[in-house]
Formats: sequence, structure tokens, C-alpha cells
Amino acid sequence: MPRLPDPPAPDLPTPDSPAPDVPAAGPPISGRTRLFAVLGDPVAQAKAPALLNPLFAASGVDAVLVPVHAPADRLDEVVRGLKAVANLDGLLVTVPHKLAMCGHADELSDAAALLGSTNALRREPDGRWYGDNFDGAGFVRGLAAAGHHPAGLRVALAGAGGAGLAIAAALLTEGAAALTVTDPDRGRVDALLERLGTRWPGRVAAAPRPPSGVDLAVNATPLGLDPADPLPFDPAPLAPGALVADIIMTPAETPLLRTAAALGLATHPGIHMLTEQLPLYRSFFRLPG
Amino acid sequence: MPRLPDPPAPDLPTPDSPAPDVPAAGPPISGRTRLFAVLGDPVAQAKAPALLNPLFAASGVDAVLVPVHAPADRLDEVVRGLKAVANLDGLLVTVPHKLAMCGHADELSDAAALLGSTNALRREPDGRWYGDNFDGAGFVRGLAAAGHHPAGLRVALAGAGGAGLAIAAALLTEGAAALTVTDPDRGRVDALLERLGTRWPGRVAAAPRPPSGVDLAVNATPLGLDPADPLPFDPAPLAPGALVADIIMTPAETPLLRTAAALGLATHPGIHMLTEQLPLYRSFFRLPG
Repeated sequence: MPRLPDPPAPDLPTPDSPAPDVPAAGPPISGRTRLFAVLGDPVAQAKAPALLNPLFAASGVDAVLVPVHAPADRLDEVVRGLKAVANLDGLLVTVPHKLAMCGHADELSDAAALLGSTNALRREPDGRWYGDNFDGAGFVRGLAAAGHHPAGLRVALAGAGGAGLAIAAALLTEGAAALTVTDPDRGRVDALLERLGTRWPGRVAAAPRPPSGVDLAVNATPLGLDPADPLPFDPAPLAPGALVADIIMTPAETPLLRTAAALGLATHPGIHMLTEQLPLYRSFFRLPG
Repeated sequence: MPRLPDPPAPDLPTPDSPAPDVPAAGPPISGRTRLFAVLGDPVAQAKAPALLNPLFAASGVDAVLVPVHAPADRLDEVVRGLKAVANLDGLLVTVPHKLAMCGHADELSDAAALLGSTNALRREPDGRWYGDNFDGAGFVRGLAAAGHHPAGLRVALAGAGGAGLAIAAALLTEGAAALTVTDPDRGRVDALLERLGTRWPGRVAAAPRPPSGVDLAVNATPLGLDPADPLPFDPAPLAPGALVADIIMTPAETPLLRTAAALGLATHPGIHMLTEQLPLYRSFFRLPG
């Protein structure tokens, strides 16, 4: 089996990064339009505008989401300024600000508190800011939408970065029986085990590679974005009934999924994670419909 | 002649407030889109998004202008935050922030410095912020586009608010020979005279009503927005060759202009001021085309 590169790339792709094309037109904007922003450094890769603006339009909401390039060393200034904008209702967050933005929330969801990371904040009617994290929930909803329910599953996860941590927490929250995590960065593995092992004692462990007996093996590393990448893990030893999932959305069929399919294994591409985030944002931002 | 009401409404309409309808769609927005904002309190009435976004599209510029409701007591926080946003290139300003925003510019144009008021700021390549004011220049360009050049004209102005001051300064800058100002608020008249009299000594004076011998009489008061308003001044005593101009854009033919036309006087509606601001913004923000 090919070794994972060391050090691995930072936790890309996150569930909010790969996505559909930019639409031909955006929402109509007047002085009454409500504002949302996605914060990142850089922000050019953010797909939140292409996702959320059509959602606003479909919901009949006069709102627009714009990219805000907040340099890491000026994030606090930017956020203080945006919070003072009276027609700004919510924020999405991409790398590297998901951890720091927890400090700008007045209250965190269970998921965000557990992960120590928030990717969505909204202004409550009383003016307080509430932060949640949908990075893992989108993946789990995507699995369920494809008929794969996490409850009782034995899971092998490759990648202990931000995306891997979020997916691991969401799978355990939804009842996954046990989860192993594989990452050449031992520090990240230990951090994940400490964070999740306290909440789900005895159900999370490190593993040098996905154990052959798992029901679900998930790639949450960036391996597969580049055609020259090695596979994140070798799916050959997996049992015949195992499902192999990837969070990479481009290409739709990664080398991992192609290899797994050739072995007769079931596969689950990354796009589901993205499409299933939309109802989560619709609900979080209280959009109609 | 009907008396002007006392006190007059605050300086509405400003040249940036009345305008065309909101377009059916806005610009396409991705993570690479550049940002512009219009600051106001309130901002719902701002027409800058409906003006500038089509201009960006026509120029092939991937940028969007959004309304930012900056409460007066939080303007400094908002502006500090926006300046820290790396993909934000410019700001437009509407009431009540035009004066305070001078303090956020590193450098002011002659017009903005003279007026003590800025309605447009851009980030220079070296990171400094440069503020200008196009409230009067749009009016003067509108006059010129209709064949009325200010050089040498004797002008009567009704209204010494922000719009009146900007228009007076722009007309004098372009060579108007003399200008009288009429406003029931003596304090505003004195402030205008002090500000402009220093720069153009002997060419600006107060008058209880437009003198009959002027070449151009301009309404820069809000009278005419409401059909029940009295006329801002009686055009009947004006000489046959005089031009009567209004900055009110809705209705297009104000009672003042209708009365003047019935007297056989030439008239100039408010819409020209608006359409002629667009090339000014195109140049100021260095948009191609």
C-alpha cells in the first residue's frame, strides 16, 4: 500500500471548498438586500457564494453572500466590523479561520464545541452570535441520502485534519459503532483521539491502515485531487460488502473510488456531502421553503 | 411666492438617492469577486447597488457593490473592519456618513476637502485611502451634457444643505460668475458662504429669493418630492432666457419644472445628474471601457 505523504497537505479539501460552477448571474441587489459573508484567507477558492446565492434566490430571500478575504492577522478587526453592520445576518467560515471564529461566537452548537471549530454563524434575534459546524453533518446526510446509515457501522477514516475530525464526530454522533483513524501526522491523530475519545470512550482508535473488517472506509485526505497522488489507502483488503467513500469532489471519480469499484466494492462520491449541506444551511439561516 | 418650510427637511434628495429600478439579476459572485460597499444609516434607500453593479457588468469587472448599514455610532468599527478586508476596493457613502468619512481618508480630493464631505473612497495601490466627492460634479456634467456650460453663468441656488453646497462648489469650480443662495435656515446659508466665500471671494451671496436676472436657477431642496409641497421658488420673475434646473428625479417633471415650462423657460430635470455620475465612478474606480 502506498504511504501517505508526510507531511500531508493542510486539511483540503474541506466540505465547503469543491463545488459547482459560478452561476451566470447573481441575486438582484438593492439598498434593502441583507448580507452574508464567507470569511477565508485566501477566499478565492470558496464555493459558498455559488452555493448560497442560488439558495437565497430559490427561497425568495433578498440576500447576498459575498466573499470576504480576512487576512489571518486582521480577522478580529474584520469580524468586529462585520458584527457592527446592521444588515449582516450570517457568516460562513473557511480555512484558516474555523478555529479562531469560535472565539467570536456567543454560543456554540454541540458539534462546534466538540470540534473546537465553527463554519457557520448567525445573528440571533437578540443580537447574540450562534456558531455551528456542518462539515461533518453534510457528509453524514450525504451517506444517508444514498441509503447508507451510520448507526452500528465500523468505520475506517483516513485523514485526521479538520475535515476528518468533523466527519468522525458526525459519524459517532449518528451511532457509528467504532472508528479507526489513519494519518502519518501522529500529533493530529492524538489530538483527534483525545477530543473524541473523551466523548465516545473505547470507540475511537488509531490504526496504521484501514482494518479489513470495516463496513465503511472514508478518505478525508486531499489525496486524489492531483492525478499523480498515491491512493490514500489500498481498498483491496476490505471485505466484499464494504463501502468506500471519498470527500474529494473533483474529480468525481477519484482513483480510490475507481480502484474500489474495480474490486466490486460499493462507492460513495464527494458530491453528496455538498448537496446535503444546502438543507442544513437553509435551516440554520431560517430561510423559508 | 410660497415660503420655504421652516425647518427644511434634511438634505434629501442627495444626488445619490433617487434612481432607477433594481435590475432583475445581480452580478455573478464567486470567491474571486472584488467587493465594494455603500455605507449609510439607513441604507435601504441607497441606489448605488442598482447603479454600480450594472456598471461593473458592462465593464467586464468581477466585482459587486453591496449595501452596508453602518449605524452612526458604530461607523468607525465598520470602516476599520472593511479596510482590513483584502478584497474590498472601494466605498460609496450616503447620509449621514459623508462628513465623518473624511476622517477615514488618508487623502482627499480638492472637492472633498472643500466640502468637508466625501461620498466615494478607493484603496490606492499603496494601500492608502483616497476620498472624493461627486455630488456636485454629476450635476455639472449633467448640465454640460444637455448643452448648458456653467462658465460665466449667474446662478441662483435654492437649498444650502449638502446637495446645495456640493452643487454650488462644482458650479463655481467650473467658472460660474456669481451665485446666490436661498434657504430659510440662516445657519446653513452662513456656513455655505463661509466655506465657499473664502475660495471664491465676492462671487457668493445670500438672497431672500432667486434674483430675476440670473441665467440659471437650481432647486437643491427636497421640495417637489411630495405633490403637496410648495414650489421651492417662484420662477415667474426670471428673465425669459433663464434655465430652471431641479435635482429631484422622482417625479421627473416636478411642479417647479412644469411651472417654468409653462412660462416658456428652459428646464433641466434631475435624471441628468444621476446618469452623468456613472462615468465619474467608472473613472474613479479605474474600471475599463
